[in-house]
Amino acid sequence: MSFKDLHYGDRPLVLPNAWDFASGAALAEAGFPAIGTTSLGVAAAAGKTDAAGDTREETLALARALSRLPVPVTVDIEGGFSDRVADVAELATELASFGIAGINLEDGRADGTLAPLDHQATVIAAVKRAVPQVFLNARTDTFWLGDPDRDETLRRARAFADAGADGIFVPGIVDDADIRAVLEAAELPLNVLYLPGKTEYPRLARLGVHRLSTGSLLFRKALQATVTAAFGVTGEDGERPAPSYGDVQRLVSGR
Amino acid sequence: MSFKDLHYGDRPLVLPNAWDFASGAALAEAGFPAIGTTSLGVAAAAGKTDAAGDTREETLALARALSRLPVPVTVDIEGGFSDRVADVAELATELASFGIAGINLEDGRADGTLAPLDHQATVIAAVKRAVPQVFLNARTDTFWLGDPDRDETLRRARAFADAGADGIFVPGIVDDADIRAVLEAAELPLNVLYLPGKTEYPRLARLGVHRLSTGSLLFRKALQATVTAAFGVTGEDGERPAPSYGDVQRLVSGR
Repeated sequence: MSFKDLHYGDRPLVLPNAWDFASGAALAEAGFPAIGTTSLGVAAAAGKTDAAGDTREETLALARALSRLPVPVTVDIEGGFSDRVADVAELATELASFGIAGINLEDGRADGTLAPLDHQATVIAAVKRAVPQVFLNARTDTFWLGDPDRDETLRRARAFADAGADGIFVPGIVDDADIRAVLEAAELPLNVLYLPGKTEYPRLARLGVHRLSTGSLLFRKALQATVTAAFGVTGEDGERPAPSYGDVQRLVSGR
Repeated sequence: MSFKDLHYGDRPLVLPNAWDFASGAALAEAGFPAIGTTSLGVAAAAGKTDAAGDTREETLALARALSRLPVPVTVDIEGGFSDRVADVAELATELASFGIAGINLEDGRADGTLAPLDHQATVIAAVKRAVPQVFLNARTDTFWLGDPDRDETLRRARAFADAGADGIFVPGIVDDADIRAVLEAAELPLNVLYLPGKTEYPRLARLGVHRLSTGSLLFRKALQATVTAAFGVTGEDGERPAPSYGDVQRLVSGR
């Protein structure tokens, strides 16, 4: 079954996100039919903050390693690590050359703003022209950065679909009404971020969401398990909540 | 307190082993006074098998990243990634240049044999001449590879101490009598590998062991948590034992 086909099954595709070869290989071995990557995990593993746009090399190295797995791999390339359209298309071409099945391309920028809609649509169209076989999941950060904006989300979902995107990803979208509106507007597979207690699988399945990804959750759970196991050596109870996204960003920046 | 001093406290030093910047930073933030690295984790994260001797670049990159942490860092350099004495001394010099406090240097080889004692003692002496300030933990694999050999362990512990080692590490050593014998023979801090259910902290503390390291345990627990959390998305119980060392090696080699 192709990576695209996995978005059209009876139930939403659960896409777990890896940050290094071992986490990806363990998830594939456990039976997940496809593997994504988490930019927070990739950045933090290298000692860098997420969404700063400087993990192009780490992202490529990880994609190259994960391409050995027997399942389709989709790679989070943030905003493409460049404002130049040609650079992003070139990166996608390089990823496709190792057999990567999909990419996530987001419109959120390091300064917390959204890339202009027209620019983002141009990038999407250029990437699809360069690598039509790669599933382009167009992420919009209209719910992730600042106040959720349903109208802008629908505008972007339609424009990205028109530009050739294969899927729409709206991290931070939670409510039934918002999810239904995007499903209707875009007519493309919708990817929702799994947020424990907020975007539970059965409800999303009923709504007809196509893909549920774990974002940085597995990476943060792994960090929690690491510290807990270290305290376990002396029998000390090191149990604490998994670090949040912000906790990991602070851990790495040392602030 | 210097890294060396940490080996002479009232209780054994618990040294948790990291494999990437994030795991090291999380352990330092949790309060562990020093951080080591795990060669299995470093290799598997990069999609390579452990102890094959080809992770010099990954080891250096990790050491450089971890050197930012506010605690002493000791780096597992396996056998030094070369049979040439000068290469190992050069590697230690490079690590010292970013402020690394210690190294683990082992006599186990990729083919499952032990390096000749004289050669290993020569390497240890050369490294200490090059970087006398770096705590050299001399690991002998007399209990790790093949049948445990107490006599050979004592011979090596004495020889490595004479060559200038700052500590002795005998992974796989478990029994009171073996541990006491090494403590008496070497007159150097003894590092024991934490093996849940086999080398428990209170007993090692009573025996006077100086350092207890976690080896690949935290890395393997992190992999377990990763898969468990991914199954948690659909509410499926993905709980299973943490992968063993051999499981991780097989995961990476794809065999």
